[in-house]
Amino acid sequence: MKKNIAIFGLGSMGFGIAKSCIDNGHKVWGFDISRRTINKFKKIGGVIDTFDKIAKNLDMVFLVVLNAKQVKSIFTKDPGILKILPKEKLVINCVTNSPKDAENFYNLCKKNNIQYLDSPISGGAKKAMHGEITIMASGSEKSFKKANEVFKDISEKVYNLGLKPGSGSAMKAVNQLLAGVHIAAMAEALNFAKAQDIDIKQCVEIISKSAGNSWMFQNRSQNIISNDFSPKSALDIWPKDLGIVDKIARELNLHAPIVKTALKEYKLASKNGLGSLDDSILIKHYFNKNKTI
Amino acid sequence: MKKNIAIFGLGSMGFGIAKSCIDNGHKVWGFDISRRTINKFKKIGGVIDTFDKIAKNLDMVFLVVLNAKQVKSIFTKDPGILKILPKEKLVINCVTNSPKDAENFYNLCKKNNIQYLDSPISGGAKKAMHGEITIMASGSEKSFKKANEVFKDISEKVYNLGLKPGSGSAMKAVNQLLAGVHIAAMAEALNFAKAQDIDIKQCVEIISKSAGNSWMFQNRSQNIISNDFSPKSALDIWPKDLGIVDKIARELNLHAPIVKTALKEYKLASKNGLGSLDDSILIKHYFNKNKTI
Repeated sequence: MKKNIAIFGLGSMGFGIAKSCIDNGHKVWGFDISRRTINKFKKIGGVIDTFDKIAKNLDMVFLVVLNAKQVKSIFTKDPGILKILPKEKLVINCVTNSPKDAENFYNLCKKNNIQYLDSPISGGAKKAMHGEITIMASGSEKSFKKANEVFKDISEKVYNLGLKPGSGSAMKAVNQLLAGVHIAAMAEALNFAKAQDIDIKQCVEIISKSAGNSWMFQNRSQNIISNDFSPKSALDIWPKDLGIVDKIARELNLHAPIVKTALKEYKLASKNGLGSLDDSILIKHYFNKNKTI
Repeated sequence: MKKNIAIFGLGSMGFGIAKSCIDNGHKVWGFDISRRTINKFKKIGGVIDTFDKIAKNLDMVFLVVLNAKQVKSIFTKDPGILKILPKEKLVINCVTNSPKDAENFYNLCKKNNIQYLDSPISGGAKKAMHGEITIMASGSEKSFKKANEVFKDISEKVYNLGLKPGSGSAMKAVNQLLAGVHIAAMAEALNFAKAQDIDIKQCVEIISKSAGNSWMFQNRSQNIISNDFSPKSALDIWPKDLGIVDKIARELNLHAPIVKTALKEYKLASKNGLGSLDDSILIKHYFNKNKTI
């Protein structure tokens, strides 16, 4: 059965989810602050309206905005969707936020009789456009049941992390720990290779066949080879996401020295004006930090 | 044409190379200090003899020992193979050593009219046993020509890094930078996951389908799941190999904060008695370093 879906946030991941939904025959209403994005969304068959007009016909609401602050604002500001949505409607939050945020959002929804799935995603813009993302979600069986048909249309694989809101976000934090460190390791390695006169293209080819390979190395090194740092995934995501990881680690008294080191580099790179470019631009930060004798 | 090959060092990589050579019909003489390893080697068809007896019939000598110090000793001690080998014989050095070591070894060989390939390898014990390692080598075309038939039998792919001795080792250092950091990141991530009550088996499954994946994560996390830390690749490799990376970085004034952080952790873990176990044991080091309140 085809569903009525609202999506808040039509950035690279939100837009991909919208497209996968539309491609599979669902009706999708989109919300985004960018006029240009909305026009692109209308061209693929997306619909625009005010939320209070469509709320009662919706089956589910996806949140694919930037951070917890934006989620909170959508939930509660002027007057916020939780006051408008009829009882028992489902909110699926795909934003990378902390497990504590997820718990708070769940409680906020519960107070308003709204179902909530803590539902982070991974896979990148390209996979999102082809309905092939990975979903790592936690929440009630009832909510999963409601979401499953659409989940199937937008993802390659859905992982159920259990009932507890926050478990999905905790799992996403593990993924971001690795992904963020791997991008920084790639920048550090290619800076190291270049200084030793190794051809970067050959280096990438060799690493892709060797034990030093990673998903991020393969993906981001292509931007370095083509010298294209237009933002497919902005560097500024990492001070945020590794910041979440670092905060959890501090709260739980966990040893996390590599996270702290990588986080420091991303923060410095952002401070030096690289934040809105693609995260592969971190290699320029490394070039700048090499000491000249 | 089948070759006569000597192999020094029959650890996991050397043994695998020996087996691939024997499987392909070459005659292989092995040298190792472990009596147990020599017995295993004889069982797969390897031959034992003194080096001066076999030297004149050899087509090539592989060095797959632990470090540069052992290579130097094989080259020059009592009296060392370079004094015994007839002119123009080929030495293939697969040891992870610094580009400077490779240059010194090349010069030492040249002085004795011996050909030298700077020929690091990657891929792990399992691939070595199946003739599927990756070779990243540099040296003269003449040396490559001599080695190529055997290279084909022991490897999935041979990368020619050019004429300069040291280029192969520089490329290997790039790979070790990534591999060493990725193992440490894996330990940091699984410690972080465990503290948040994420099931480690499910976590590994999810990461393997997500952007946080790496070759090392996939490979080493299996040891953690099965709680088997018998050394397939010993932790003590990393203070050595990341030590080489760090030394190069310092000499070239390169920014390498993540390497320094990971190196510090491996050194601490080794100092605390984990060095001879599998490098995936680094997770125990993380457990120990978590602060209890």
